Amino acid sequence: MKTANNPLSNIRIVLDHTSHPGNIGSAARAMKTMGLGRMHLVAPQRFPHAEADALACDARDVLEQAQVSATLDEALAGCAIAAGLTARRRDLQHPCLDVREAAQRLLEIAATQQVALLFGNETHGLSNAELTRCQYVISIPTDSAYTSLNVASAVQIMAYELRMASLAHVPSLEETTPLAHLDEIEFFYQKLEETLIRIQFLDPQHPKRLMPRIRRMFARTQLEKEEFSILMGILKQINLFAKSKVD
Amino acid sequence: MKTANNPLSNIRIVLDHTSHPGNIGSAARAMKTMGLGRMHLVAPQRFPHAEADALACDARDVLEQAQVSATLDEALAGCAIAAGLTARRRDLQHPCLDVREAAQRLLEIAATQQVALLFGNETHGLSNAELTRCQYVISIPTDSAYTSLNVASAVQIMAYELRMASLAHVPSLEETTPLAHLDEIEFFYQKLEETLIRIQFLDPQHPKRLMPRIRRMFARTQLEKEEFSILMGILKQINLFAKSKVD
Repeated sequence: MKTANNPLSNIRIVLDHTSHPGNIGSAARAMKTMGLGRMHLVAPQRFPHAEADALACDARDVLEQAQVSATLDEALAGCAIAAGLTARRRDLQHPCLDVREAAQRLLEIAATQQVALLFGNETHGLSNAELTRCQYVISIPTDSAYTSLNVASAVQIMAYELRMASLAHVPSLEETTPLAHLDEIEFFYQKLEETLIRIQFLDPQHPKRLMPRIRRMFARTQLEKEEFSILMGILKQINLFAKSKVD
Repeated sequence: MKTANNPLSNIRIVLDHTSHPGNIGSAARAMKTMGLGRMHLVAPQRFPHAEADALACDARDVLEQAQVSATLDEALAGCAIAAGLTARRRDLQHPCLDVREAAQRLLEIAATQQVALLFGNETHGLSNAELTRCQYVISIPTDSAYTSLNVASAVQIMAYELRMASLAHVPSLEETTPLAHLDEIEFFYQKLEETLIRIQFLDPQHPKRLMPRIRRMFARTQLEKEEFSILMGILKQINLFAKSKVD
């Protein structure tokens, strides 16, 4: 457990479809001042970019080591938990945490497992589809008269709260139960959906909100690795039987 | 007590000798998202400026209402408490608070009195002379590997903590004892210094660290208005006697 003593090194900041390179640079600086070093960029509009370098100041190493990917899936691979920052309460009733409470919980998990924090595009934030990928939705309590927090400022506040939590954190001697990784969970959802279609519970022409509801349900459970294996085993069996029936 | 119910409206953010107009704009946005509206600028290098406007986004009203002054004294006039943000622990041993604890204390005071928060220049921070004007010195716990927090980011974190404190704050029914204003306290220090010179306790050619030590002592007391009057009365008497002796 080589990273057990530094939970901050197990936390990645994922900036999704960021428009302005300056914000990427400012986010890197915000991260490094708080002891966070792992940045993932999903389809940034312009990167690398001189403005990002300029605003990163002496946190350019964070930019140089940033992982750039085309899809959110790649950025989340290997993570046990994803949490998304959003200004708005969505219709999708995910468990919504304030940033301080979230930082404490995520830091506890990050003692032994990989955690991703998602920040959306400057104009649109995170989409509902992206938020359904998150086990936690986090909001920063802005003033109702003006809720438009800059994305690098949101990174700064989140990183600050993680640092404050880490300074208060005494590592637990107990092992945390290994959680399923997000890519495994996505694989499960995909197989489940196929299965539900196959057994004609889900009509792909009229899916309604079935899959989002299922995701929301599993998001609250924080699926463990063993549970994931069990569920996959069940799906396999269902498919085996459904196939033989169709045949 | 018209402002008793909104302590945030009694808090001013003082940006001292800010170099980059973009930082002034970002600070305005950071303030407004957290419900702070009162900005004071001491000798900004370039203001007003298009870059400040651009980065303020919809917080341009904060810039338009900002008070610009040539000296720190003007920006602090009428305040009961000044607190300065600094990355470094100074040799001057002011009471140094972490930002969370400071936010709670300052909010309590701001329920009935004016509070100023000072943020120094991007390169040099606050000078020791400026820090001696503060009753509190506040530091944000940055990572020792990279302590260089952007000034607008520091404003963001401080404003966020003030907002968090205000959300938790239940206004006290008790009246806070009226504190001496900072301009009164400065007047006192000035008269005290003159008096100490007059009575030949302080050698103006070799002042050593006498006045800073005295300031540090009074900073911890949070001088009340009545105490200020008493001290001034004492100084007047000392001067009266010293003068007659010299004559």
